[in-house]
Amino acid sequence: MDSIEAYLAEITAAIRPLPAREMPLAGAVGAVLTDDVTALHPLPSFDNSAMDGYAVRAGDVAAARSDQPVILAVAGEVAAGDTRRHDLLPGSALRIMTGAPLPAGADAVVPVEQTDGGTERVAITQAVTPGSYVRTVGGDAQPGDLLLSAGTRLGPVHVGLLAAAGHGAVTARPRPRVTVIATGDELVEPGGQLMPGQIFESNALMLAAAARQAGCAAVQYPIVRDDTDLVLAAITDAITNSDLLITSGGVSMGGEHDVVKAALSSLGTVRFRRVALQPGMPQGFGTVGPAATPIFTLPGNPVSAYVSFCLFVRPAMDAMQGLFRERTKQAPATLAGPVKSPAGRRSYLRGILDPEVGTVTPVAGQASHQLANLARANALIIVPEEVTSLEAGTSVEVMDLP
Amino acid sequence: MDSIEAYLAEITAAIRPLPAREMPLAGAVGAVLTDDVTALHPLPSFDNSAMDGYAVRAGDVAAARSDQPVILAVAGEVAAGDTRRHDLLPGSALRIMTGAPLPAGADAVVPVEQTDGGTERVAITQAVTPGSYVRTVGGDAQPGDLLLSAGTRLGPVHVGLLAAAGHGAVTARPRPRVTVIATGDELVEPGGQLMPGQIFESNALMLAAAARQAGCAAVQYPIVRDDTDLVLAAITDAITNSDLLITSGGVSMGGEHDVVKAALSSLGTVRFRRVALQPGMPQGFGTVGPAATPIFTLPGNPVSAYVSFCLFVRPAMDAMQGLFRERTKQAPATLAGPVKSPAGRRSYLRGILDPEVGTVTPVAGQASHQLANLARANALIIVPEEVTSLEAGTSVEVMDLP
Repeated sequence: MDSIEAYLAEITAAIRPLPAREMPLAGAVGAVLTDDVTALHPLPSFDNSAMDGYAVRAGDVAAARSDQPVILAVAGEVAAGDTRRHDLLPGSALRIMTGAPLPAGADAVVPVEQTDGGTERVAITQAVTPGSYVRTVGGDAQPGDLLLSAGTRLGPVHVGLLAAAGHGAVTARPRPRVTVIATGDELVEPGGQLMPGQIFESNALMLAAAARQAGCAAVQYPIVRDDTDLVLAAITDAITNSDLLITSGGVSMGGEHDVVKAALSSLGTVRFRRVALQPGMPQGFGTVGPAATPIFTLPGNPVSAYVSFCLFVRPAMDAMQGLFRERTKQAPATLAGPVKSPAGRRSYLRGILDPEVGTVTPVAGQASHQLANLARANALIIVPEEVTSLEAGTSVEVMDLP
Repeated sequence: MDSIEAYLAEITAAIRPLPAREMPLAGAVGAVLTDDVTALHPLPSFDNSAMDGYAVRAGDVAAARSDQPVILAVAGEVAAGDTRRHDLLPGSALRIMTGAPLPAGADAVVPVEQTDGGTERVAITQAVTPGSYVRTVGGDAQPGDLLLSAGTRLGPVHVGLLAAAGHGAVTARPRPRVTVIATGDELVEPGGQLMPGQIFESNALMLAAAARQAGCAAVQYPIVRDDTDLVLAAITDAITNSDLLITSGGVSMGGEHDVVKAALSSLGTVRFRRVALQPGMPQGFGTVGPAATPIFTLPGNPVSAYVSFCLFVRPAMDAMQGLFRERTKQAPATLAGPVKSPAGRRSYLRGILDPEVGTVTPVAGQASHQLANLARANALIIVPEEVTSLEAGTSVEVMDLP
């Protein structure tokens, strides 16, 4: 039986980050930079006004007071986006709008609130110093300044900054493309009609949504029946446009019905093993196809599949995006009820964490098919391998569910 | 000048949650339930095996021990998805797979690991009690049990549970459709060529991405020039397929260039006001068009626009989704450097929070056009209205940036 740490180490050693590629900014939110981005041009790229007001020479208005305004001739107006050259003659003012380029000769802006707002002549009631209300060229970033560091997962402000700095596109690691394949003769598409002995497919839907939450572009493959050739065909088909495959089901101990195990005996490097984990003991990981596409074969029990996803698949997805340090948060809490755990396996029990009080209440049903109980939980209670039971009041480590 | 709280109260009073509609499960992640969802059928819907093994009558194997196995005839096999009726005759066993329906007459499953795995006859080396390794009908949820509460924002596990419980679709509040309109003669699409006096558009890109992060479906409108009729036409066009509009720019104090102000003087209920906030003093909010579509007119300065988004627009988006309690987290931290703030306005200064150490370092440039400095920050430092400066070492409230 593999330890959780050994299995995870094997996974992260095998995963290669996706190569970066150029992508438009609007599609780059969530992508991860592979290189530092530095400013090519100064930001702002020209001196401009921080306020609506009047561009002046500070020296011309040095004597301005509310009871003794300085009167200047208004020689014209500069709007934002005005691309003409404007010159400010000594002793005059130019009306100027926020963001408009500072005219040659001007060294300050008087906000309209400190004037009478005149259009031909303006009375200025307060002195300004050189540079007042001017956004200086390069005042936000100078050429060569670091704008964004390698490893940044691009958020809204980051793409805004890239745009402002003159980038129409960015080179970053794309979102991993993930296909989720659910196998099983018992499965019926959600919303269909069940015959006795059948259940609705829910794992592929859940895992594809979880993959999207982890920053991937994920699709569900149509349900694959318990036939080794069909499973093989589905995997071979899906790897053509996937960076990562996830299967669900077909990996238990029952021999001929373990179609995922059977299919992958003839394809790829997947090693099936038991991991010292509850739920989610049967695990398979390896690579398939010409591009050595990573594949996880998750158990069909929905709670096992989801816990496995959180512990193993999500870190792999982070690694594919070059995010090696992003881990789900773990913190101590006090058990509000007793728990049991099998000897020799680390349990991740479903619990309801109250972060205000610092308690975690185990949900009533902890079996690995009890999806309704997982849906009630917001955290996993971690019970170490050597512990088989814990009383209420014990301090435990708890992992937030995403 | 409005207080931040008064302005926010006006916004949340005006916003109506979007009406719920039926949507397919795959598209429902992120949508918010308006009603409790209860189980219509038991989950699981039939007794089934939790393990690969043998379906038995517990009484038949009560004497089984490792040194004295009980031998039973194997009368057949039940696979997962087998929809035929199976009957277990006394004194015999049926091979059974995980998830397969328990045959009539059986009351327990012996895992294959506690047998010799025989196919015609099986030697069972351990007794089981009735119910062992059986997932009982309704053991996860009984009809009428609450599965998901009204107000739940659907995550991966929730849609999985809905699928498992027989829902092919769900009635929930959809993601708000948002259009972001940037105005300004100075704006050039990212990646284009700048003339002197021009800048690259970045606000609409940033705000649309932020809206998506807040759970909305957001689009950017093409840049609108400083012309009241063009702005009016853009707003009138965008409201036909938007639940919320955001404009950026055109709302300063300069009169004829404030095209957004001018356009909205003839359309809708938008009230322009100054809010006791830094950055982001000029704000406008109201409704436009036949459906009374909410509209925010944000300042054109990118830092002001983003801070305004976090403080006012995001809560409105939450309210449209029926999420009234989701607020950005606020917590105390120790200032690692001095800060200044204008009297009478609450400042939200850009800072780098170190949550381990509990310190927050103000970034070097706090002007509202300094987007590069915002991109370096991960938190906003809150300086109350009556405070004009704070020394390093002071405890301040800090808001995480999303």
